[in-house]
Parts: sequence; structure tokens; C-alpha cells
Amino acid sequence: MKTTVKAIYQNSDKYLDKEVKLEGWIRNIRSSKSFGFIELNDGTFFKSIQIVFGEQLQNFREIGKLHLSTSIMVKGKLVATPQAKQPFEIQATEIEIEGISTSDYPLQKKRHTFEYLRSIAHLRPRSNTFSAVFRVRSILSYAIHKFFQERGFVYVHTPIITSSDAEGAGEMFRLTTLDLQNLPMTEDNEIDFSKDFFGKSTNLTVSGQLEAEAYALAFKDVYTFGPTFRAENSNTARHAAEFWMVEPEIAFADLEDNMKLAEDMMKYIISYVLENAKEEMEFFNSFIDQGLIARLEGIVNSDFEKITYTQAIELLKNAKKEFQYPVEWGVDLQTEHERYITEEVYKKPVFVTDYPKEIKAFYMRINEDDKTVAAMDLLVPGIGEIIGGSQREERLEILEQKILDNGMDPKDYWWYLELRKYGGTKHAGFGLGFERAVMYLTGMTNIRDVIPFPRTVKSAEF
Amino acid sequence: MKTTVKAIYQNSDKYLDKEVKLEGWIRNIRSSKSFGFIELNDGTFFKSIQIVFGEQLQNFREIGKLHLSTSIMVKGKLVATPQAKQPFEIQATEIEIEGISTSDYPLQKKRHTFEYLRSIAHLRPRSNTFSAVFRVRSILSYAIHKFFQERGFVYVHTPIITSSDAEGAGEMFRLTTLDLQNLPMTEDNEIDFSKDFFGKSTNLTVSGQLEAEAYALAFKDVYTFGPTFRAENSNTARHAAEFWMVEPEIAFADLEDNMKLAEDMMKYIISYVLENAKEEMEFFNSFIDQGLIARLEGIVNSDFEKITYTQAIELLKNAKKEFQYPVEWGVDLQTEHERYITEEVYKKPVFVTDYPKEIKAFYMRINEDDKTVAAMDLLVPGIGEIIGGSQREERLEILEQKILDNGMDPKDYWWYLELRKYGGTKHAGFGLGFERAVMYLTGMTNIRDVIPFPRTVKSAEF
Repeated sequence: MKTTVKAIYQNSDKYLDKEVKLEGWIRNIRSSKSFGFIELNDGTFFKSIQIVFGEQLQNFREIGKLHLSTSIMVKGKLVATPQAKQPFEIQATEIEIEGISTSDYPLQKKRHTFEYLRSIAHLRPRSNTFSAVFRVRSILSYAIHKFFQERGFVYVHTPIITSSDAEGAGEMFRLTTLDLQNLPMTEDNEIDFSKDFFGKSTNLTVSGQLEAEAYALAFKDVYTFGPTFRAENSNTARHAAEFWMVEPEIAFADLEDNMKLAEDMMKYIISYVLENAKEEMEFFNSFIDQGLIARLEGIVNSDFEKITYTQAIELLKNAKKEFQYPVEWGVDLQTEHERYITEEVYKKPVFVTDYPKEIKAFYMRINEDDKTVAAMDLLVPGIGEIIGGSQREERLEILEQKILDNGMDPKDYWWYLELRKYGGTKHAGFGLGFERAVMYLTGMTNIRDVIPFPRTVKSAEF
Repeated sequence: MKTTVKAIYQNSDKYLDKEVKLEGWIRNIRSSKSFGFIELNDGTFFKSIQIVFGEQLQNFREIGKLHLSTSIMVKGKLVATPQAKQPFEIQATEIEIEGISTSDYPLQKKRHTFEYLRSIAHLRPRSNTFSAVFRVRSILSYAIHKFFQERGFVYVHTPIITSSDAEGAGEMFRLTTLDLQNLPMTEDNEIDFSKDFFGKSTNLTVSGQLEAEAYALAFKDVYTFGPTFRAENSNTARHAAEFWMVEPEIAFADLEDNMKLAEDMMKYIISYVLENAKEEMEFFNSFIDQGLIARLEGIVNSDFEKITYTQAIELLKNAKKEFQYPVEWGVDLQTEHERYITEEVYKKPVFVTDYPKEIKAFYMRINEDDKTVAAMDLLVPGIGEIIGGSQREERLEILEQKILDNGMDPKDYWWYLELRKYGGTKHAGFGLGFERAVMYLTGMTNIRDVIPFPRTVKSAEF
């Protein structure tokens, strides 16, 4: 019967000593005069299955010469192999070639650098590491949807094309259909964007938060999960020009509710991946990041700590440790500071709250001290900040003043301000950089290796 | 106890005759000298709940004057009202104002045109119609993920920024960080895109299919679900510049498998929405599109028909009906033709297969007749085409020739061709325009009314 490698691994009793039919790709092949072995992977499961083929096959010689990644159909009997490393194998009675491969197949059976594999991004999901990374990426995506949907959150597709700038900063990609060789100009010799597709200048979004707030003030609990963009000229292992963000936004909720949601979400999605990607997580734990599973389980089982920014600064000042960046009340925390707090002081995830208003975005709610805002960053061992969020400023006059103070024009935010005018209420939300979460869950250290076809400075291949 | 409107509707026995606490927005309010009624909606549920408040409240007079959309906290007892239209109401013992609204609230209790509501896209999810639309959009999104994930499909985030053009056609948005006032030029007086962010000219994607194929040839079954873009200057009720697409891609699969998948998916997602958005679907059925539920149930319970394009042309030629666009073998089917076939001939969903190769994309597999390709469109009553797909050309030489025949450069498709060189196999896939599906499921007729913040020609507000 036609089946898959996954079905066999998950329910081998059903197939043992029966004739099965599989289709897949040759991950490895070796043969001698009278028999040979194929590791067959059909993409449905992390592990491959061993095929034994012998000279009774009429195309025995042809099969023995096949190159890696050839796609084949195999019929044969599944037999238990209690003496061997693998629990079972298939004794082939028929092997049919579906699509040949060639000797120059770029993913030969040897260690390749991740850098080289990036140059064959169309083939790298056929390797162990990237098969594991991208299946975990998929399972993690689903865990996020599942978490929010089961709690009644409404998923909002906030716009990708935008004429505003969510953070009042951030370098953006311009979008245009104008003929660059022949730009229309106004009488003042400015580019005439009224002739552009949208009748004005537009960019790619850097965040869906402001639009998500509009929906939270209708549906109470909402979330976004979509691509966002930064045109930052940062060629580092942690920056990509295109990445996905998860941004829940909750109404009738304050910073405490926000932290509770973030903690619940982190524990849920980590548990879900540990449970639903066992083989992949064991692979990462063995070959990419030893101690990964213990660290993740530690997070699931811990109560997250909460300290204020002011307490964090005290901790850092009293630390018996030399930091590259000195700390003083008012400065932003660097990764070295964040990691010290979460790894050395508390040894578990830590929320840092109530940052100085000067270093945080305009929409964050000002605290009673008029110096800090109701912000929260979640720091986790091994990485530092993984989530940033805040309670939002719901007081119309204060928000208007903050917009002015930031050199922005309240007219550009008319609808965002109206959310405070017509039944505004306390609300809060946070952002989880999805790639950062994938890196955290897999132990992969370069963002280019957790995005199927990464877009970074000077690179948009495929 | 603090609860939600949804919890009360779903489990009213638990709350009856108990003190409850709710937070939400005033959807409607009327009051007399000694008592008043509030319809309170908290966003968690389509329906509102009735609050009765009397003069024993110390702020009775203040409450009576509140404007629509004011956010309030209500404490009171839930009591059954067997004589009334609504099954229960809350007798308020305390009402606290959280955020006032004003008399100029733009969403007054009267009929507004959808066109007007588009101008207040930040507030329209607070109306019945758009609350229903956008909750269904969210539930439908989840149904799609659930369908594919439960079948072991891997979700792939294909790139949004691209330097290629999936269809070999289609008008695209250019992306740039160059200073348009001061464009760098080459010696040949061309714009020097090597100075642009990615070192070359880039666009927004029109489809993730080609990249999804790379992943299908590693994971067997994959799908994408993300935004795609068209810079088409079409100001119609069915075109948006930014919309979401669902694109499954399956390996070791042919056109038959593809049609089976499309049929299973359509039935699953429709059933899921009918089951999980009951109140919203009843609303659409009553106020937007009478007969909607029966039509959708009809689809779930029918066996989809399959005919070839050649048969479809015969049917249309023999039709006792005048078409605006005459038919002849070789022309593309228009919506009037599609609707005739699915609504008048078969009265159920119909797959039309094997279209002339000249009217379909380069990547579709050529049939043995060398005239048609293994394409399939799914036509459904009330709309016409809702899904388009095909088996993909897996034969390297034929694909290369097709690329040349379409005036494209095989070098630009080097990696796509390599998928056929290294263990290619038969594979297939299709695309479902997500907004088209939302329109189909809700009966809404303008694409601007199923996208939270729509982007169309000359319009990118919010």
C-alpha cells in the first residue's frame, strides 16, 4: 500500500511484514556487487528509511549508479531489524526511477558550511539541518495561530503597504510604479507622487501595531502575524530586511495582563514545538546547540521574574563584572546587560518594565512619575530581549502632546488619535520577532539560516 | 466574576442569577426618567448583551447621556428574560465609565453605505457587518492553517521582496531606497541599481509558487499563505493592489491529486467556518446574501464535477444563451461562461481542465497532445473561478524551451530549472485568492470590504 515515511515511523506495527510503496529522494546510497542500501527521505519526516536492494532487481546495476537526490518509487516489504541501528528497513522488490539527478548535485554527503548552503537556498531544505529548521518554523507558526485562536483572538491582516511610519523612525523601503528614468515633477521641482500608483508616497510597513490597536478596540483581543521590513544597512547575523512579526494587542488590559499573555504564549509555543517536532529538536540538541532542550524546558517550567528598569540599572551597577557599555539611569540596555540579568542573576526569563520615556516609542503610556513609560521587555537566557511591548497611551491629550514632542504631525495620526476619542480604553500589546523565536528554539545563530530565502543588504537572490 | 459576552452566551447557565463583571463598548443606549437600556458589545462575540440600569445607580443621569461607543465597566446580575427577544439581560448594580465618546462619533445607529464605512476603516469593525466580516476572515485563515497542518504540510514563508517575476508577466511594484531626487546613474546613463539596497532592481512578489516548488521538492507537501501584490490599474470591486494568497504545492502528485486536494480543502474550510462562525454566517444569510448558507452547504455536500476545457467550449457553443464574449476553442473563459457552466449546467462546483497552452503560464505541464496543458480551474456557483492550478512541467528540456518561447531568459530561472535537474518529480499546486474566498463565504461583493485596510489604485489610507 502507498504510504509515507512518517506513517511508517509513527505506526510501524501496522506496516510490519507488509508490502509498502514509497516515493522519495535518495539521501544516501552505497552498493556492492550483489546488494546495496539506500537512505530514502520523502520529506514527510525528519528521518530517512533504509531500503535494501539486491541483484534480483532487474535494474540492480542501474540503481547502484544513481546519484544523490534522484527521486524514486520503491515497493518492498517492511521488516524489523532488531540487531541494527535503525528499527526497520524495506527489502525492495521494485525500484522505479522518477527523476534522475546528476553527479554535480551540489549537496553532496559531506559537511557544508551554512554560508555555502545559503547559496543553494533552493536545495538546502533537503539537508538535515535545514529540513529541521524549516519544519520547526512551520510548526512554530501554527503554534502561534493555535495559541491565539483557541483564546478567541481575532487574526488581523494589517497592511504591508503603508503611507505612515509606525515608530516615527526606522528606515523604510519606498514603493513606486513611477518610471524612474522619467519622473514626473511638480512646479516646485519636487517629485510628483500624486502621479504614483497610490497617489502619494508609500513604504513597506515596519509594524502592524497601530492598525492592530484599531482592531483591538473593536474585538478586544487581536493579533497580527505577517511580514515587516527594515531598510537598515546592518550586515549582521541578527538583521534581515524582511522578517515576520507577531503582534498581539489586547483591550481592557494593562501591563500586567500583557506580561501574563507574553509568558503564557512563550510557554505554550515552546511546549508545542518540543512535543510536535521531537526528532528535529533532538537533532538541534545534539548537533547545533547542546543543552538546548534543557534550556527550553527550563523556561516552560519557570515563573518569569519581573523587575523595573530602575532595579535593573542598580543590579548592573553593582555587578562584579566589566561591561563594554557602561550603564547609567537613562541609557538603553545592551545585549550584554540583558544577558547578565537573565543568565547570571536570575537564571530564567525576566521582564524588565518601566523604561525611561526618552528611549521608548511615542505610543507607550506615561507612568505617574512622568519619567518612565509602562513598557516591558522580556529577556531570556541565551539571547537577551525576545519580546518588547507596552501599555499604550490611551489619554488623548497626552498622546497628542507626545506626537508633537516627537516632531511628528498629529494630522498624520488622525485615525490613531480618534481611537482615543471614541471610547478609548486601557490597552496593551507586544511584538515577537518571529525569526528571533525560531533562532531561539533551534539554536541557529544566523537569521539567514531560519528564513527560506533571506533578504539582506545586497542580497535578494531566488 | 469578570467574564466576557462570549462566555455568557456560550454557557449562560453558569452565570445565571450571579453577579458578573463585563467591560465593553456601548453599541446602543436609550433611557427614560427612571431606567435605561444599553446594548453592550465587548468584541468577543458577534452579539451584544442587554444591560438594564435604573435610578438607584448614583451616576444614573450621567450614564443616560453617554454617547455611542463609550467604553464602560458593568457589574450586575445576569437574569433570564423568557418573555423578551433576548434570552437574558444584566441588571446593573454599578456602571463605571472607562473612556468617553462624543456626539460626533461617526458610526451612528443608522444605515451607512459601505463606501462611507471605508472612509472610517479604523472604526468599521465596530459595526455588525464588519465585525462579522473580519471575524470570519480570521476564522477562515485558521481553517486554512488547520487543514494543511493536520495533513502534515509544511508552511513556507516565501519571500515578499523578489528580483524575479513568477508569472513572466504582471505589473509589479518597484522597491527602492535610492534617493529619487538624486538617482545614481551608470556610464550608459541608466539608473545604477547596483547602488540600491539589494544591489539590484527588486519588486514585490506576485506569487510564492516558484519558491514553494523548491520546498515541495524537499518536504513533499507544502503551502504558502502570505501577501501578494499587483500594480494593476484596475479600479473594480474585485481588484486590490495587496491581497493574500494560499498556494499549496505537492510533490509526487499529478493533476488528479491536485483536484482532490482543492476539493477537500474547499469543503473543509467552508464546513469549519459554518461551524465556528454560526452567528456571523446567520447574519450574512439574513442581511447580505439570502441563500448563502444553503449554497455553501450545497458545496460541502456535492461531488465536484470535472470537464475538460474542450468539453466546456462545446457546452458553451451549444448553449441556448447569448454571451457577451463569443467562444471559440483557444479563447480564455470569461466569468459569464464560467458561471453558466457551474450555475446553469451543473449547479455545483466544476473543475475545468486541460486549457490551451497559449493562454496559460509557462510552468504548466504540456499534455501529450502538445496543444493543452495540465491546468485546472475550479468554478463555483455565484462567482466563477475561485482556484487556479496545474501540474508543473517537470521535464527540464521542455521547461527550458517554454521559458525561451515566452521571451524570458533561462539564466533568470537557473535555480527553478535545477529543481528539475536534481531529482525532479511530478508535482502540482494551485492558488486560492484569500479575499475571493472571504467574499464567497460572506456574500460581500466588494474586495475593499473584506480587507481591514484595503490598498487600491489611488488609495492607501491608514
